[in-house]
Amino acid sequence: MYTRKEKNTSGEKKERTELSELGEFGLIDHLAKNIIPKHAGTVKGIGDDAAVIDTGKNLLLLSTDLLLEGVHFDLTYMPLKHLGYKAAVVNISDIAAMNGIPKQMTVSIAVSNRFSLEAIEELYRGIRMACDKYNIDLVGGDTSSSVSGLLISVTITGEVAREEIVYRNGAKEGDLLCVTGDLGGAYAGLLILEREKQVYKANPEMQPELTGYDYVLARQLKPEARTDLRNLFKKIGVLPTSMIDISDGLASDTLHLCHQSKTGCRIYEEKIPMDEETKRLALEFNIIPTICALSGGEDYELLFTIKQTDYDKIRNVPEITVIGHITTSGDGQNLITPDGQTVKLTAQGWDAFNKK
Amino acid sequence: MYTRKEKNTSGEKKERTELSELGEFGLIDHLAKNIIPKHAGTVKGIGDDAAVIDTGKNLLLLSTDLLLEGVHFDLTYMPLKHLGYKAAVVNISDIAAMNGIPKQMTVSIAVSNRFSLEAIEELYRGIRMACDKYNIDLVGGDTSSSVSGLLISVTITGEVAREEIVYRNGAKEGDLLCVTGDLGGAYAGLLILEREKQVYKANPEMQPELTGYDYVLARQLKPEARTDLRNLFKKIGVLPTSMIDISDGLASDTLHLCHQSKTGCRIYEEKIPMDEETKRLALEFNIIPTICALSGGEDYELLFTIKQTDYDKIRNVPEITVIGHITTSGDGQNLITPDGQTVKLTAQGWDAFNKK
Repeated sequence: MYTRKEKNTSGEKKERTELSELGEFGLIDHLAKNIIPKHAGTVKGIGDDAAVIDTGKNLLLLSTDLLLEGVHFDLTYMPLKHLGYKAAVVNISDIAAMNGIPKQMTVSIAVSNRFSLEAIEELYRGIRMACDKYNIDLVGGDTSSSVSGLLISVTITGEVAREEIVYRNGAKEGDLLCVTGDLGGAYAGLLILEREKQVYKANPEMQPELTGYDYVLARQLKPEARTDLRNLFKKIGVLPTSMIDISDGLASDTLHLCHQSKTGCRIYEEKIPMDEETKRLALEFNIIPTICALSGGEDYELLFTIKQTDYDKIRNVPEITVIGHITTSGDGQNLITPDGQTVKLTAQGWDAFNKK
Repeated sequence: MYTRKEKNTSGEKKERTELSELGEFGLIDHLAKNIIPKHAGTVKGIGDDAAVIDTGKNLLLLSTDLLLEGVHFDLTYMPLKHLGYKAAVVNISDIAAMNGIPKQMTVSIAVSNRFSLEAIEELYRGIRMACDKYNIDLVGGDTSSSVSGLLISVTITGEVAREEIVYRNGAKEGDLLCVTGDLGGAYAGLLILEREKQVYKANPEMQPELTGYDYVLARQLKPEARTDLRNLFKKIGVLPTSMIDISDGLASDTLHLCHQSKTGCRIYEEKIPMDEETKRLALEFNIIPTICALSGGEDYELLFTIKQTDYDKIRNVPEITVIGHITTSGDGQNLITPDGQTVKLTAQGWDAFNKK
């Protein structure tokens, strides 16, 4: 890691390492170093979609996410109700990624005086709508003023039986790598919204051109969490060997899964499921469509691995696509292009510390 | 509630209610209205120090707090390590207020590029120091960039046996109102720090005058949570009928407790325990000493009620002071001054939305 020596006021040299040199995940890893659980009930700490706590009967899942205006969302095109809904869904997705059932949620918000009560009610309407849809109790939180803008901190609990929990770290060589739904849509939706924002800025008289983009806009503005997979897995009799939700992009989240499982992988680019609208839009923006899936993020689909012997159980399930398989860690994490080239997977996903 | 009609751009009238008209607790009450728990495991939602979840064997406590630079803390006089420690303690105190044992913690932070890795490490050093002292596992969190300053969101879990939990709402007429330790010190410490900040601003060559204020500065900069009371209660065979931690000031937190218990109370001003240093400093600042206790906040002592029949068990415990008793709700919440006057208790405590 690169650190700079700089002189402080008393003339002595002091080290200063910029956070951007580590990136978000580097920082989490760095801060989590040498943390050894003290309680027997602490089954899993930092490093998965949720922390896991043994409460005696079942396992309790705990996850938290922070959303900041100007960093994670832009209120020029994100309606407050949608923002509330999305803030909840992002957390629910973390519970789905552990194969758990979401249960309780706390929501803390800080708002500047730019916001009225009616605006905050609108935000909460979205949160409560998500809580109703996903059968979650809103049990607490904190409200505060902020110096600038809006921030939302959501914490969620979930429950899962000991024998049903799925971690990021269980993938084994030969396992099949699968995803739910289709990818890249949320990013394509963001491209449209950003374009219309620029148009509006240049000429506020212009009406936004949003018709014909329904699917990708919904993917960006009103994502859903794949809590349905849990029941589907039960029905078809499959328990994934590992799982993560796709929040940072397929590339970044695959790397997380392989890193935790200490494996490599091969993803076949042509297998990555994408909606036609997403593909069309990517091309309109001169972007290779699969880049939206690999690096876009925010799709909140699930990425998981299953044993090869379970292939017959999922092959005819329309919600699941096999995109590759797990290899040994020595093979690295690779993407196989349609013309047969092997490209190293890199996390070009969204990184909080490098975002402009 | 007062709402203003204002015209929006399309000329139609729209209501806009300022958040400052409700205040922090008004806003929480308003947003929490009509929330009905869906899960049998959700024992207690919004309205206490922590949410309570039935996990089958014991009860799980869940609480969350948000701390923002410029609103809750000032880095000109708050060292980052102390801030981390305090951020943890504030949450631990919520678990102590339910008579629970703190267990796991998640910490999310957002930082601007003003902060170096070394600064964040210093913050985490304080958090981990508190986790070590109070025997808590740090199990997760989120890191992000922020547009302005530092913000910390902490979520804590705790555990408590069904028969040992103490809520805010159990106080009954005739119960004795008690506090731990002494009050007002944290506020007196803040007064000193604010004064020295002004001196420094006027003349950066001046050295801060902080000697002789050790106790109150420690109360402000390194508060502790009263997790020791749980064992003390067990030892002396007392289970409080209600409890809350004093974070907003004795007046405000007494009102919360009475509001939840649907009772009135009488607090005898001369009984309020205060340290000599706190009293001396209050007078130096021309403030009636008990105002520091009533309205200062951040002492993180416990306010609780016990049955009158338990009086003999606590009368010789130096850590506990009886300051009054519970009356019927019709009597209101009152302070009895040393000359026998009855004054209505009002929450002049810290309110996030009215703070400058």
